[in-house]
Amino acid sequence: MSDTHEYITTGKKDSKFGIPLNEDILYPAIESAIKSDNFDFLGFHFHVGSQLQDTTSHLGALEVILGLIKETKSRFNYDIKDFNMGGGFGIKYTERDFPLKISDFVDPIMKRITLFCEENSLSIPAVSMEPGRFIVGEAGSQLYTIGNIKEIPGVRTYASVDGGMTDNIRPGLYEAKYDAIIANKAEEAKTSTITISGKCCESTDIIIKDLKCAIPKSGDILNIFSTGAYGYSMASNYNKLTIPAVVMIKDGKSKLIVKRQSYSDMIMNEIL
Amino acid sequence: MSDTHEYITTGKKDSKFGIPLNEDILYPAIESAIKSDNFDFLGFHFHVGSQLQDTTSHLGALEVILGLIKETKSRFNYDIKDFNMGGGFGIKYTERDFPLKISDFVDPIMKRITLFCEENSLSIPAVSMEPGRFIVGEAGSQLYTIGNIKEIPGVRTYASVDGGMTDNIRPGLYEAKYDAIIANKAEEAKTSTITISGKCCESTDIIIKDLKCAIPKSGDILNIFSTGAYGYSMASNYNKLTIPAVVMIKDGKSKLIVKRQSYSDMIMNEIL
Repeated sequence: MSDTHEYITTGKKDSKFGIPLNEDILYPAIESAIKSDNFDFLGFHFHVGSQLQDTTSHLGALEVILGLIKETKSRFNYDIKDFNMGGGFGIKYTERDFPLKISDFVDPIMKRITLFCEENSLSIPAVSMEPGRFIVGEAGSQLYTIGNIKEIPGVRTYASVDGGMTDNIRPGLYEAKYDAIIANKAEEAKTSTITISGKCCESTDIIIKDLKCAIPKSGDILNIFSTGAYGYSMASNYNKLTIPAVVMIKDGKSKLIVKRQSYSDMIMNEIL
Repeated sequence: MSDTHEYITTGKKDSKFGIPLNEDILYPAIESAIKSDNFDFLGFHFHVGSQLQDTTSHLGALEVILGLIKETKSRFNYDIKDFNMGGGFGIKYTERDFPLKISDFVDPIMKRITLFCEENSLSIPAVSMEPGRFIVGEAGSQLYTIGNIKEIPGVRTYASVDGGMTDNIRPGLYEAKYDAIIANKAEEAKTSTITISGKCCESTDIIIKDLKCAIPKSGDILNIFSTGAYGYSMASNYNKLTIPAVVMIKDGKSKLIVKRQSYSDMIMNEIL
């Protein structure tokens, strides 16, 4: 999930992102940014992984950044203004996740950076972060209507839903796991095991494998938890499925924030 | 790629698709379709896999279908009208692919089904197929402009392009391989090795790893071959990237068939 250790030790991480931690590349780049008339060099940013449930990668990468802050001051007499610690703060998708609090990440970073800057007589930069999924992930649920239920005796039971990889590509793309409940049977015992299959004509389009839930019936409403992030934002029209509406709910009141895509919206740019 | 053999031998394939090959499920389903006032029972359909480069799966599954055709006649005195052999006919993505001709699939199927029906005094059904990718896959190319080129000394060289997993999710989703050429340097020797990275903020967003090509420069046009299928149809607005235009070319003349999505098109259903 996080391979920051290799990055720190070798400075040779094989990544499409960022500037390599190679002295001959990095310091000329910093110098040219500082001297540029077109750039205002703010400082450093890292991204150490996604859905992290410990602080090892952030704290390890921070040490690299602290070295860079000091070296930038010493080589170019330049105080950096900003340090962006990225995101990657894990959330709870299923019972197997044990996410940290945001303060578990932020507090040791702020403590360490403050101490380091004081000890080295450096200005303390503004610290920013990018906690997108951490904010919206658990806040969202995707709702599906259960359609046909297919039992393969001795093998598995599939419950189809009226959506799938078009509104949530993460199970197919990252083998992401989700938990769900039959919303209209929330109080019922979870005596069934079903696999939630999406509408797309692909074996890949399975949202949850072997979900424990109440006995399902066509017409039931399935609520998939922690789908507030990377659902709508990654949605597609594959198999010419339209993109569902997004509704915000607060204090028992609902508000439509994304209208349901219509068939004519979907093909509006297709010249027939 | 194709696990039809297991399906045939056990009749218990773990698939979300179709009716299980279990006598107690299958024949009642056929009978109810035949007797239904609401259905016109046409016959059988199979789909045995994708991007297949031999006929084993199709011919194996055909034997199962022939048994069903005969059994349906004998149990219900019903002649099926249609047999749909699905698709899955492989195309050439890279030099590692050796696709068959369409007749390599169709001829032995037609010969076998004709002979079988004659021998068993059965009506020969209409035979249909679904050669979507086979028709449009190799016919299409995706064009990108190369942007920044990042060399990590001793590791790898990345060339970024102005698109990525939003217009081609297949490398991320299926580890699909593609071949490409720098279109404006088509005659130049392929002395460089570059990895094509997409615009999305994901390590996953790599279109081709270690492509041999001419020496790349920012502004060059990269042509990715065999992208006529599952490109536009699976496109998304992830990272708020817009969906590119689709242009059809024939006899040196071009015709816009899908207009480039604008930013306002993209957010037209978002209530701000």
